[in-house]
Amino acid sequence: MSTSAHNHAIEEGLAFQPKFDASGLVTCVATDAATGDVLMVAHMNDEALRKTIASGDAWYFSRSRQALWRKGESSGHTQRVVEMRMDCDQDAVWIRVEQTGAACHTGRRSCFYRKIDGGEGGAKLSFVDADKMFDPKKVYRT
Amino acid sequence: MSTSAHNHAIEEGLAFQPKFDASGLVTCVATDAATGDVLMVAHMNDEALRKTIASGDAWYFSRSRQALWRKGESSGHTQRVVEMRMDCDQDAVWIRVEQTGAACHTGRRSCFYRKIDGGEGGAKLSFVDADKMFDPKKVYRT
Repeated sequence: MSTSAHNHAIEEGLAFQPKFDASGLVTCVATDAATGDVLMVAHMNDEALRKTIASGDAWYFSRSRQALWRKGESSGHTQRVVEMRMDCDQDAVWIRVEQTGAACHTGRRSCFYRKIDGGEGGAKLSFVDADKMFDPKKVYRT
Repeated sequence: MSTSAHNHAIEEGLAFQPKFDASGLVTCVATDAATGDVLMVAHMNDEALRKTIASGDAWYFSRSRQALWRKGESSGHTQRVVEMRMDCDQDAVWIRVEQTGAACHTGRRSCFYRKIDGGEGGAKLSFVDADKMFDPKKVYRT
């Protein structure tokens, strides 16, 4: 098959053919099914993808720990998948989830609790929607 | 600074300190400011980040072409940034955008025009919100 025909099959076909990167991962974006807010960006390997599809709970692969994990297995803050979508070139997945509690390990609902603003002295961050829903020290054994 | 103190500064600080990967990139998720739908997942290098912040238009770095590009520079389908956020560990950016036309090079509004469903024979895709807003052959010189 030519490159062009291959790309056409990936983009216009209905076969599930995730394109894993050199580390065997695809990017996954989880959004809040109720509000549309982006909760987190993480990665899935083949097994995390399969477990997520089969169970309806979000599973990820941690690059830092090099381990498969079910979201919420330590914290109880699980993600129930409402809908799962694949992007055009099949290297990114979007899941709309019902989030229990907070998605972020810092205790916030979303990992995106800081806004980026420009300015004369360069870009700066400012907190927005940054209230903590839990105390990470009490939830994780750190 | 200890690793723990360093992580605390990255997660709880207000200094803009993007954590680029080995290729010099952060992941960027663009959502539709009007609907909350995820439009695309792409990458930004340092220059793309700076140009996006300074101009208010989305700039990305193409891994396949190894080139900086302003979204819509070929197609006219630009993205005006309404809000830009950084995630906890500063390796992913979320932009809420006003999308002109279609975000996807296939002609769809979003790159995520296929749903993933499980089943006995394995996962399958099905089209959803997959109407083409333009004919790629007419917009791009392919």
